[in-house]
Amino acid sequence: MLAERVEARLAEAGASAESRSAAVRAMLHASRLGIDSHGVRLTEHYCRMLGGGRLNKAPQLGVDKRGAGSAMVDGDDGLGHYAAYRAVDVGMELAREAGVGAVGVRRSSHYGAAGAYALAGAEQGFVTFATTNTDSMVALFDGAEKFHGTNPLAFAAPVPDSQPWLLDMATSSIPLNRVLLHRSLDKELPQGVAATPEGEPTRDPFAADMLLPLGGVDYGYKGAGLAGVATLFSALLTGTTLDPEFIPMYGGEDISSPRNMGHFVLVIDPDKFAGRAVFAAAITGYLASLRASAVRAGGKVMAPGDREWDVLERRRAEGIPLDPDTIRFLGL
Amino acid sequence: MLAERVEARLAEAGASAESRSAAVRAMLHASRLGIDSHGVRLTEHYCRMLGGGRLNKAPQLGVDKRGAGSAMVDGDDGLGHYAAYRAVDVGMELAREAGVGAVGVRRSSHYGAAGAYALAGAEQGFVTFATTNTDSMVALFDGAEKFHGTNPLAFAAPVPDSQPWLLDMATSSIPLNRVLLHRSLDKELPQGVAATPEGEPTRDPFAADMLLPLGGVDYGYKGAGLAGVATLFSALLTGTTLDPEFIPMYGGEDISSPRNMGHFVLVIDPDKFAGRAVFAAAITGYLASLRASAVRAGGKVMAPGDREWDVLERRRAEGIPLDPDTIRFLGL
Repeated sequence: MLAERVEARLAEAGASAESRSAAVRAMLHASRLGIDSHGVRLTEHYCRMLGGGRLNKAPQLGVDKRGAGSAMVDGDDGLGHYAAYRAVDVGMELAREAGVGAVGVRRSSHYGAAGAYALAGAEQGFVTFATTNTDSMVALFDGAEKFHGTNPLAFAAPVPDSQPWLLDMATSSIPLNRVLLHRSLDKELPQGVAATPEGEPTRDPFAADMLLPLGGVDYGYKGAGLAGVATLFSALLTGTTLDPEFIPMYGGEDISSPRNMGHFVLVIDPDKFAGRAVFAAAITGYLASLRASAVRAGGKVMAPGDREWDVLERRRAEGIPLDPDTIRFLGL
Repeated sequence: MLAERVEARLAEAGASAESRSAAVRAMLHASRLGIDSHGVRLTEHYCRMLGGGRLNKAPQLGVDKRGAGSAMVDGDDGLGHYAAYRAVDVGMELAREAGVGAVGVRRSSHYGAAGAYALAGAEQGFVTFATTNTDSMVALFDGAEKFHGTNPLAFAAPVPDSQPWLLDMATSSIPLNRVLLHRSLDKELPQGVAATPEGEPTRDPFAADMLLPLGGVDYGYKGAGLAGVATLFSALLTGTTLDPEFIPMYGGEDISSPRNMGHFVLVIDPDKFAGRAVFAAAITGYLASLRASAVRAGGKVMAPGDREWDVLERRRAEGIPLDPDTIRFLGL
């Protein structure tokens, strides 16, 4: 029902069947796993960008195979989800023969949760890495200016008889919407996650003007470096837009020019390393050992993805919570 | 002089010319760039392990090409540096044709600083990722037990007319020797970097029994996930030893059994994506923009590696500081 409404709205906005179906799949991934900021609430935004001309309604994807294990996908300025899922498909095709497929994407746009693409590979039996750079929002270590985006790194791996191992993490400690939430609750932020316009760390959500990289005040050079890794793979290897140079996703006047966003996907076939059976036994043993690990009082040890799979189960039973604006836009 | 003494000691301990030359190269990388824990002070340790039989004095490396972009290197239980540099060579050879080379290493041993191998690829013009899992030392998020090692992720990229961009980071906030340093200085640790045997965060270096993952008390699930990424690539894909199952590097009684350590290297040829010239211009522009970014009062914005290249310059002029035990062992 929800998926059909999202798809109907994208169809009304003119998106081609293939491109809107990819966007629906990626948004539902996020909404089902609890990553609501990248879920179906973005439908209205994408529709507006399809109307404004930023997004090509009927993109013709280009695939340029550059080597036995490498390719570039041209997104033709359509919905980013479409280009990114295609990149995973191309990566899997390359990996089946070469053992590894590394695929850059250019002329793309916002693609939602990076984990959707890592998961798409893992569901087919491949260890998969997906990343993208995004609009500037995070200071450098000791910086006083928004430089990198919250640039996600997402990894997924197949696990026998189980949901995949799935790590989908921003390279900042928190996303921007956490700051907005704390403003609406008038509640202090944790330490070392946001800064004033002068780059001074602040716990006051109203004084917070930018995010700080993962690692906070002492070790934020690591988070900043990892945000750089996302940029390196997504923008530098593909020759696309740098984080500070994006036409703003939200709030800018220009909704007609394409943003030339880049992404990167790496797909690995475990069979071309120690072998699929060895890998399956190893990851099963690793996760058993992790889950049996001693826990501190009141805590709970989880593998990456476990929290998301719990949310999936809960939302399957209880449905996906939606904000009033999204309910209105989708006519639910 | 220093390099010759290190090599002479390894020769006396019986290491073959090829394997000891790789170890000298990697240890000097670390000592020159200020990563002293992985520098020439390890010479004595490696000599002891060559004598004890843990390390094969004359390893015959095996290279099993598994696909156009993938291979496994068998370290034959020799010095890990030898197998790891070979993996980079194999990765570059694959990447020249396939665009990407992903190489797993098995039957290896401690290999020092992961950045040495990322750098080896970048120096030849390739974007390179190197990782390894290591002895358990870091709690899981909410864990009360050493689980992952400090598992490094190292990335390097070539920069025209400059030293490479180089990120070599542990997935814990600090290394274990920082705790030992704070003990000797009787000085409090930063918040959220270490824990008691019960997994409770502590700033008392004498109460600290294990490290906490990058991200600390609030966001340590990200650091723990990244340590898992190192294990996924290095141990699970290669079918080698899990972090908690290693025969201890130090302090254990068994110095005769090989540890079957795994590593992983990914080598990417920028020419097989948007092209070498596009990449060169993009990374040059990115670093110019990063270095021109606004700075907070009293701070300094640096690109990953800048600190290390500063140390390199200083040590070129002033020499490499050595501890008394190392001076004695090397006869300097």
